[in-house]
Amino acid sequence: MDRLEEKTLKTEQIFSGKVISLQVDDVELPNGKTSKREIIKHPGAVAVIAITDENKLVMVEQYRKALERTIVEIPAGKLERGEDPAASARRELEEETGYECTELDWLISFYTSPGFADELIHLYIARGLSLKENPAGLDEDEFVNLVELTLAEAVEYINDKKIYDAKTVYAVQYLQLQEALNS
Amino acid sequence: MDRLEEKTLKTEQIFSGKVISLQVDDVELPNGKTSKREIIKHPGAVAVIAITDENKLVMVEQYRKALERTIVEIPAGKLERGEDPAASARRELEEETGYECTELDWLISFYTSPGFADELIHLYIARGLSLKENPAGLDEDEFVNLVELTLAEAVEYINDKKIYDAKTVYAVQYLQLQEALNS
Repeated sequence: MDRLEEKTLKTEQIFSGKVISLQVDDVELPNGKTSKREIIKHPGAVAVIAITDENKLVMVEQYRKALERTIVEIPAGKLERGEDPAASARRELEEETGYECTELDWLISFYTSPGFADELIHLYIARGLSLKENPAGLDEDEFVNLVELTLAEAVEYINDKKIYDAKTVYAVQYLQLQEALNS
Repeated sequence: MDRLEEKTLKTEQIFSGKVISLQVDDVELPNGKTSKREIIKHPGAVAVIAITDENKLVMVEQYRKALERTIVEIPAGKLERGEDPAASARRELEEETGYECTELDWLISFYTSPGFADELIHLYIARGLSLKENPAGLDEDEFVNLVELTLAEAVEYINDKKIYDAKTVYAVQYLQLQEALNS
């Protein structure tokens, strides 16, 4: 197998914002030539497949400015600095949906866009849901509508492009796989 | 349901590169307050689940500078301007693996990171693979190793975090689901 590493020759910091930062790296390629890599740094994120006792999937409808439209997603949010991912998952579930859970299990973690970003998302599954009496609220620039769907409805939402993002299509397919394995 | 739209008040262009561009939008939130949204514009991408006649999954090992490591992914690449996604999928498969295919079917499209980026990835499944005699080569800054895995091996690669990105874990889970449904 060929050696593939790229050596950093120089890093130019372009932007540092509240969610992401952008840098351009000059790199030495495996063949000795040079190139540039545009890189987004992200703090990482968590997402939660939350299943009610009635076997409904808890989702949030949210406006995504990058897409200029609303989509329906599993509850998710970015990690706070130094925050444990499981604690973050419980926090986001409560803030976005009002639910707390008795069971929370890690499922998988994956990079969303390895070609240009280091965002790593940690996916959890939550059961034993109950609405908390005084749940923590959303961030002041966050607005969501709660949506609870059966698995069949979630598949319809994918076909209708209402559910349209990687973590949520992965989550729905995960539940389809569990159903197929248990039938 | 609450209205969720965010109105653009101002767009500041921060960076325009060879793969991504970055802008910061001032937005009016549903409650009339204002906030900022950091947005990455991306041309979109394609990815291919390529299955050999021996039922192996064709993958590429690639160094990802954003992650500072190699990972194993299904063949993928960004859309050229105005390029048809299916043509792009055939092109990327050929460039990265040397394979051409007799069957190519669209499976699903999804946004990878809707919180900050508009990257939409179109996922295809290719069968009827054969190695092309004089395949188009890689871009001059692209270096990959070809890897062919059984489905069981791909699942092992996920457990070992060698396969570690959204499109590829989705692809592997898709094949697990097809296997479960057909057994």
